[in-house]
Amino acid sequence: MKTTVAIIGVGLIGGSLGQALRRSRRYRVLGIGRHRETLRLAKRRGAVDRISTHWPDVQAADMVVLSTPVNHIVPTLKKLSPFFRPGTIVTDVGSVKSPILAEVTRLKNLHSFFFVGGHPLAGSHQTGVAAANPDLFKGATCVLVPLDKAALKPVQALWKAVGARTLILSAAAHDRAVALISHLPHLVAYALVQLVACRRDRKTLSLLLAGSFRDVTRVASSDPDQWSQILRLNASNIHSASQEFQSTLDALEKKLSHSALRSTLQRLQAFRRPLFNGV
Amino acid sequence: MKTTVAIIGVGLIGGSLGQALRRSRRYRVLGIGRHRETLRLAKRRGAVDRISTHWPDVQAADMVVLSTPVNHIVPTLKKLSPFFRPGTIVTDVGSVKSPILAEVTRLKNLHSFFFVGGHPLAGSHQTGVAAANPDLFKGATCVLVPLDKAALKPVQALWKAVGARTLILSAAAHDRAVALISHLPHLVAYALVQLVACRRDRKTLSLLLAGSFRDVTRVASSDPDQWSQILRLNASNIHSASQEFQSTLDALEKKLSHSALRSTLQRLQAFRRPLFNGV
Repeated sequence: MKTTVAIIGVGLIGGSLGQALRRSRRYRVLGIGRHRETLRLAKRRGAVDRISTHWPDVQAADMVVLSTPVNHIVPTLKKLSPFFRPGTIVTDVGSVKSPILAEVTRLKNLHSFFFVGGHPLAGSHQTGVAAANPDLFKGATCVLVPLDKAALKPVQALWKAVGARTLILSAAAHDRAVALISHLPHLVAYALVQLVACRRDRKTLSLLLAGSFRDVTRVASSDPDQWSQILRLNASNIHSASQEFQSTLDALEKKLSHSALRSTLQRLQAFRRPLFNGV
Repeated sequence: MKTTVAIIGVGLIGGSLGQALRRSRRYRVLGIGRHRETLRLAKRRGAVDRISTHWPDVQAADMVVLSTPVNHIVPTLKKLSPFFRPGTIVTDVGSVKSPILAEVTRLKNLHSFFFVGGHPLAGSHQTGVAAANPDLFKGATCVLVPLDKAALKPVQALWKAVGARTLILSAAAHDRAVALISHLPHLVAYALVQLVACRRDRKTLSLLLAGSFRDVTRVASSDPDQWSQILRLNASNIHSASQEFQSTLDALEKKLSHSALRSTLQRLQAFRRPLFNGV
């Protein structure tokens, strides 16, 4: 028998998840949201089986995936949780875990549900269900932060069904890690764009921009709404990561006139190569 | 009548230039180098009409393009210049201009040739003539630093023939600009890889790396030989650029908990968008 998953927020992540879950033939997907037009598009894109703009319809779900923008996850859960069937398993896809889990812990005292925080490390600088892709999670890692260990297995099974591997971390460890490997790189990209944008000779500089600048700053074209929320929620970890990064940059700079520079760059190239299959 | 161009160093840049010049039907290309096998491959790839491993054969050339790795440009010019026909026009493709032009100025007292420094802002993290592409310079900017204004027009014509636009700058202005928009982004990418590579939890972090880290650090897979030379030659400008960058990063960090963050990110996204046609 199929598990019914309600996806709240059928954008790039929610839509891709819905497409992949339906393809696995083990899940029935119910798309719930406020905007009927978005839900209809999601249905045309094969991301959901049924749609509803009526919150109480969430009672049909065995599992609920909150995949709204990160600052809407807790408000959405507050609105939905009175309608959950007892024992409903709830997870989310928010990029920052500690602030969300703190609020969810408080909510769990009022309503009966099981919660496992989640964060699939996949995405794109694109947004919306029109960019959804059922292969988005293939080979990706989804971090899980279980509040209720009893609910862990079904959430692991859900991510496995869409091709992701799962990794259990504490909320604090997750937030420190993503500050370093995702949020800081975004901030660095924004800072490089800012460096050119604020200069008087920016027109000349713009003529000289080549592939390296394009690639290093690509993530600066990410959605400003989403990213201002993410960066704000994880500000203190990002600050620590930035301090560590600037020390590393200074140390590397000191090697610029040194004969060891070549072997340092070789070592870094060799470390990076297997991480992305040589890309 | 066709102009004969000798290309010294038929790698990615020299090979792409040769292919594009031959396609324009206005140039005959002579490939000169030390390694016969590399030259033969260049001929098979359509990058040259004729090949030679004999330096004096450069006397057949009306123009000479030095496209060896940046630290070989001056030594190569020293070896070749005794064989130039009087009035030969020489240019190069080195990524740093001041140190090269200082040496060339000294050499010009010994031998009679015209020199216009050059730097096409095009390339790839790949190397070698096997990756050459006659469209590499289409729409790219080639900076020219004329030591001899009389030789400027033929060098401009050469880059125009392969689809590039030219921009005249002083060597100092060029080196400051590329420190900011190319060398610093490379150093930043290396520092981000280093940040992960030197941590004890690098295995966990590696599982979490997604598209943003891949893109921001892609240029860290550039050739360590070439890049250690480039970074070393432009170290003092890179140091200044890095100081400016770190101040910008700190200023951006201060905005993380501020409501103006969203509008700042929007402004940066809007500034970046037209630079790369929305990519």
